[in-house]
Amino acid sequence: MNITFNYLSSRGKDFFLKVKGKSSIFLCTIAHTETCEIPGISAAGANTDLIKFTAAADVEAIYYGKAKCLAAVPENPLGPPSPVIISIAALNILNIPYFPINAGLKVKPVTPLIEINDNFGKSLEKGKALIEFDFENIFEKVKALAEHISKSFEFVILGESVPGGTTTALALIEAFGYNGFNKICGSMPGNNHDLKINVVKKALKYISNNDEPFEIVKKIADPMQPIQAILSIELAKRGVLVLLAGGTQMVAVATLIKHINSDNSIYENLAISTTKWVTFDKDSDIIGLMENIDLKIPLITSMLNFETSKYENLRLYEKGYVKEGVGAGGLSAVLFNEKGISNSEFLEEIERVYKNIYG
Amino acid sequence: MNITFNYLSSRGKDFFLKVKGKSSIFLCTIAHTETCEIPGISAAGANTDLIKFTAAADVEAIYYGKAKCLAAVPENPLGPPSPVIISIAALNILNIPYFPINAGLKVKPVTPLIEINDNFGKSLEKGKALIEFDFENIFEKVKALAEHISKSFEFVILGESVPGGTTTALALIEAFGYNGFNKICGSMPGNNHDLKINVVKKALKYISNNDEPFEIVKKIADPMQPIQAILSIELAKRGVLVLLAGGTQMVAVATLIKHINSDNSIYENLAISTTKWVTFDKDSDIIGLMENIDLKIPLITSMLNFETSKYENLRLYEKGYVKEGVGAGGLSAVLFNEKGISNSEFLEEIERVYKNIYG
Repeated sequence: MNITFNYLSSRGKDFFLKVKGKSSIFLCTIAHTETCEIPGISAAGANTDLIKFTAAADVEAIYYGKAKCLAAVPENPLGPPSPVIISIAALNILNIPYFPINAGLKVKPVTPLIEINDNFGKSLEKGKALIEFDFENIFEKVKALAEHISKSFEFVILGESVPGGTTTALALIEAFGYNGFNKICGSMPGNNHDLKINVVKKALKYISNNDEPFEIVKKIADPMQPIQAILSIELAKRGVLVLLAGGTQMVAVATLIKHINSDNSIYENLAISTTKWVTFDKDSDIIGLMENIDLKIPLITSMLNFETSKYENLRLYEKGYVKEGVGAGGLSAVLFNEKGISNSEFLEEIERVYKNIYG
Repeated sequence: MNITFNYLSSRGKDFFLKVKGKSSIFLCTIAHTETCEIPGISAAGANTDLIKFTAAADVEAIYYGKAKCLAAVPENPLGPPSPVIISIAALNILNIPYFPINAGLKVKPVTPLIEINDNFGKSLEKGKALIEFDFENIFEKVKALAEHISKSFEFVILGESVPGGTTTALALIEAFGYNGFNKICGSMPGNNHDLKINVVKKALKYISNNDEPFEIVKKIADPMQPIQAILSIELAKRGVLVLLAGGTQMVAVATLIKHINSDNSIYENLAISTTKWVTFDKDSDIIGLMENIDLKIPLITSMLNFETSKYENLRLYEKGYVKEGVGAGGLSAVLFNEKGISNSEFLEEIERVYKNIYG
């Protein structure tokens, strides 16, 4: 039982039957939001000076097995490694192409990079997070990207690396009128709800009831969210199966999709997939959140388990550290679905990658 | 007879047999070199102020059927439209995905863009054209790009849009010790040899006999040439068939490949393809040039003919204006090879595109 279906489960099962054997690609949308520089918000970088390198280092590690913009791949200061080791191990076995998408970075990776946008997001605290973004041009680029990806690929796995992204996820969900407090995940045990709620409440003051969806986005989103939402819609419209590979951050993307999309037929082509560390986290509630928002997108969970790992730092995942990122959950669910390998076979490859990267 | 095989013809025929039905992608490497700002060097932009927009406008037109960074797609001041209309028409029928690669631009297109390098080239006149380029990082990116493209595509068509690129082509060929004077093509009748020779002679003063290939590149190349050469080698090594879609500019790329590659097995995966306006141009000599350099790469020619066009500005192609660019020759040869359509069917689609873009 390496995969479970947790919300709209029969649609999730159908989705995973359909994606089997399809021509696939992994696209990882990376972005920086100054929201992550608020002290305590993110554990994705080893310290606040290094956070801006996190997304770049993650995607470099996928290409080269190591970071290039930094001496090492960032790790949680408490020890557990970046979830990118899971993504790398899954991609090694799946052998599908991968490209990062620049949605707005402070530091660019030394990799091929599909440029969609070149300025990063401001902090949501002032209600002007993406105020300077030229969405008309951005969406035209995203549409062109979707059109050309759809000519060669039937299945697209969309990951993300956005430090501070669970805070902007909470903000977006709340701004659309759903209760997300204490339901959002995060990269540390307990998920630091009080701090996130506090920060998000400041941002919500700038939201009014009659804001249009993209006014909300401009005020409090991170750059990944609107780009990922439009990319998903444009791909799904063209018949491409799209897996939003992430946890509560992808619930926020799905919420935005719900509020900007009027074509119900796209939903049969969409699913969210994350790790069991998110789905069954006792300090957050992704299933409740999806029910609340009444999303039409199923949730699929990779049951990848680190309990038996020989590395203490990997076993920390079982204690609520890190949980998800860089498409780790979705990629591992796809791997289980596609190749039928066992947890211990997969863990062996992850441990090999971990050892290579972190020495 | 819509395709002819002109140099190493049996290898060219084999190559075109092998590419039939393969999973294909068109990648267009675009770059700016200040060499094109030397008065008289380029006719690619309507005037020298607009030249820096040319490459961006070309790739925008492929995505959107019109330029976005400019009010119109640049045209030769004498009337004939950009060869991008041929590329667009061919891609419309081939229905393969396309992405531009940024090798170093002054103006970026409003399109998805695979970022490999972000600074443009200086003029070759001072012998410091690419002196600031970080080739170690650039080549690492190109290798990663090739690796991931090769996971999904068996055939890659590589185009270019580099205003002033025939002058840097001449410089590179001469710097490697081959006689290119009066053999290089260009975007106007007669090809403006005297001016190009004059400019290139200034650059050649900086070349010494014991320069390593990449010292030569740093002194007098444009940014497209080294990136295209390494990309071709890295793709071909991985068994991908690579068509260098262009005229004498691609001969320069092939010359660089010859001088940096030690693996003879890559040559069975490489070919150059251009238009008949280049191959049979009376004022240049691509076949003689390839023989001289003793290239191991065949030349394939699209016999696309505009004689019967209802538009005067298209018929100007038959008088030596424009000739090639944005992969036009290679894409049309591939179209003839793949779909077996007639010249008049193809011309009809080109005229439709021309009318849409230029009104």
